[in-house]
Amino acid sequence: MSVKSYDFHVDTKGYCDIVDVSTQVQELVRKSALTNGIVTVFIPGSTASVTTVEFESGLLSDLQNAFDRLVPAELEYAHDARWGDGNGFSHVRAALIKASLSIPFSDGSLNLGHWQQIVVIDFDNRPRKRRVLVQVMGE
Amino acid sequence: MSVKSYDFHVDTKGYCDIVDVSTQVQELVRKSALTNGIVTVFIPGSTASVTTVEFESGLLSDLQNAFDRLVPAELEYAHDARWGDGNGFSHVRAALIKASLSIPFSDGSLNLGHWQQIVVIDFDNRPRKRRVLVQVMGE
Amino acid sequence: MSVKSYDFHVDTKGYCDIVDVSTQVQELVRKSALTNGIVTVFIPGSTASVTTVEFESGLLSDLQNAFDRLVPAELEYAHDARWGDGNGFSHVRAALIKASLSIPFSDGSLNLGHWQQIVVIDFDNRPRKRRVLVQVMGE
Repeated sequence: MSVKSYDFHVDTKGYCDIVDVSTQVQELVRKSALTNGIVTVFIPGSTASVTTVEFESGLLSDLQNAFDRLVPAELEYAHDARWGDGNGFSHVRAALIKASLSIPFSDGSLNLGHWQQIVVIDFDNRPRKRRVLVQVMGE
Repeated sequence: MSVKSYDFHVDTKGYCDIVDVSTQVQELVRKSALTNGIVTVFIPGSTASVTTVEFESGLLSDLQNAFDRLVPAELEYAHDARWGDGNGFSHVRAALIKASLSIPFSDGSLNLGHWQQIVVIDFDNRPRKRRVLVQVMGE
Repeated sequence: MSVKSYDFHVDTKGYCDIVDVSTQVQELVRKSALTNGIVTVFIPGSTASVTTVEFESGLLSDLQNAFDRLVPAELEYAHDARWGDGNGFSHVRAALIKASLSIPFSDGSLNLGHWQQIVVIDFDNRPRKRRVLVQVMGE
């Protein structure tokens, strides 16, 4: 058993930009040379999240519409009144979807479904360079 | 320290069917013969999720109503316009609740509360046979 | 590689009280003497959750307002009709945000962002003494 820690960066457009990071995560699992275990994908920061989706453009827009309905950017946020960076809605969305996801892998391969990709969703209100942590634990 | 990988299948009715899988997960933790660690429950696929609830019929219907309000099936989804399978709402719900959950165990027992069960929620719009992955890691 | 299991208690006010537990979690990671791995923070019970936020008062009130909009306390809940404890909304909120969060650590330090704290959100409708489980796994 052992643990390997990696990171990589993704450039996002912000505003609910959804970025497929499955390839990067799978490559780091391979690089770890571990065969069975879990990989934890984690975003340091409080305006982005990690989840899995079927990565196709229709669904990406459906998901963005859902966030616009559930946590609208146009409401008044006390965070904005206090700090003036206008991204209160981004913080709320990220708190709901959370910054962490753990995925099992076997024989060196992520146990994802065929139509299931790991995505980083950047809820912030500007483009960001996001650091993504990938910790591989197993044997 | 070691890792053990298992799976099992559950038959669901789809349409926000909520299935208690606590017994299966607990039995696999026992089977692993590991005493302390975490078990990760993961659904390969993008229209189902894992969480914990108090498994009683009133709450199950409350939760189903909440999903109907938050991500209605009746809206138009770009995923459906593109792929015609009519389950855009299922994908959006699953992306929000996510496919993974990690639960600590001690002395071979899951550290759940007395009124807390592990559930798979199948958001798809048809009955499904769902494969549930259970990865036990610990010592 | 090894696993260390800890717990601590927090007194909450209920009603979406958001409590910063980052210091306690970080101290337990130090106490474990493990340097690299993941820490899983888990709440036994079905009316509280764990996530990360920028812990500042504006955002805490934004998040509480979001829960009031998304899962209002004033709706009728079948759980309440059945059990009479009036916290159906608390259960639904906790099922959505979930009771578990895994965070990687390196060199003995949590890999959180500068403005990212680990919080327990108590959705129940009364003050609670909450037991928080902290399981540290790594090497």
